[in-house]
Amino acid sequence: MKHRGILIVVSGFSGAGKGTLMKKLLETYDNYALSVSMTTRAPRQGETDGKEYFFVTKEEFLKKVSQDGLIEHAEYCENYYGTPREYVEKQLEAGKDVILEIEIQGALKVKEKFPNTLLLFVMPPNAAELERRLRGRGTEDDEVIRKRMHRAQEEAEGIEKYDFIVVNDDLERCVSQMHSMISAAHYAPGRNKEFIDEIRKELKSWS
Amino acid sequence: MKHRGILIVVSGFSGAGKGTLMKKLLETYDNYALSVSMTTRAPRQGETDGKEYFFVTKEEFLKKVSQDGLIEHAEYCENYYGTPREYVEKQLEAGKDVILEIEIQGALKVKEKFPNTLLLFVMPPNAAELERRLRGRGTEDDEVIRKRMHRAQEEAEGIEKYDFIVVNDDLERCVSQMHSMISAAHYAPGRNKEFIDEIRKELKSWS
Repeated sequence: MKHRGILIVVSGFSGAGKGTLMKKLLETYDNYALSVSMTTRAPRQGETDGKEYFFVTKEEFLKKVSQDGLIEHAEYCENYYGTPREYVEKQLEAGKDVILEIEIQGALKVKEKFPNTLLLFVMPPNAAELERRLRGRGTEDDEVIRKRMHRAQEEAEGIEKYDFIVVNDDLERCVSQMHSMISAAHYAPGRNKEFIDEIRKELKSWS
Repeated sequence: MKHRGILIVVSGFSGAGKGTLMKKLLETYDNYALSVSMTTRAPRQGETDGKEYFFVTKEEFLKKVSQDGLIEHAEYCENYYGTPREYVEKQLEAGKDVILEIEIQGALKVKEKFPNTLLLFVMPPNAAELERRLRGRGTEDDEVIRKRMHRAQEEAEGIEKYDFIVVNDDLERCVSQMHSMISAAHYAPGRNKEFIDEIRKELKSWS
């Protein structure tokens, strides 16, 4: 029954541990592909083109947009970010479940365009733990922490738009839960229209 | 995070193998409880009160209804069938996921009353396999088979109302998929209102 892969959007608070979760998920199971975003922002120290992002000029980005080559795109702090369509389509076609890591506005845009997208929201077990993780990075001062906590508060308003929450308390358990959610999602009726239509046709030819 | 259990309704074509699936699921995992229905129909050969059904008189049944002691009930072939509330509530409270095996009309009634109910629909891989299984029982003549196939055709119209389809081709795999679906369902935002409200409150106290 499993043919085409499904599209998964992972969102969540900054500091909730999305990166670590994604890495572990991809290491543990072989049915996933992680989409790499395209951006016009400059690469940071240690970032490689094609790994963290595809780094392009504003012109290249806008050309991609005009060709409908991005599934979604957004502007953030005067830079553009977007999801290249070709890679996603190719991986879905090959039966891979493709993960996009984007924030809520982008997530909802993708869901509107592709109603069968699965939306996952990664959360810490509580706010204190979120703060601890943000401070643990060691690079953020109080003002940045305050901003991120405030941003988390805003994002938390959208949780009900997501299909499942992923509570990141224990990495292994969490990855296994995410995998369960995605495996289950393959069996939603909306993702099995062909199969359901086929069996309906068969049953009809019986009566 | 996992406190209260969730309510699960399993429906599906007669002959799809629901009984075998339920039995295996309950043998394999310890977080499930199977609800036993109450009925006014006479026990069949080999049926035990409290196991297949609670067998009661029409008077006892109607008294139960008047006391709001049934989660749902329906009349079928001049007999009443219903789901006793007390057992279900007690098991959910104890953290068990409670499974009701009822047909589509009852399933939708339960979902309306308890919106967090998870609806699963068990299907054979194809119609020919359904026929094979119905014939395999050895007790049904052609006319009964035709009726059941026709009934399946009617029931198939409601599949989109269900959260997930369970395609019963391989017992072990199927039971493990059902378990994934139910585990995942625990993390739907609607089933975690308290947790989400709590973290929102914590985040608010931060800004």
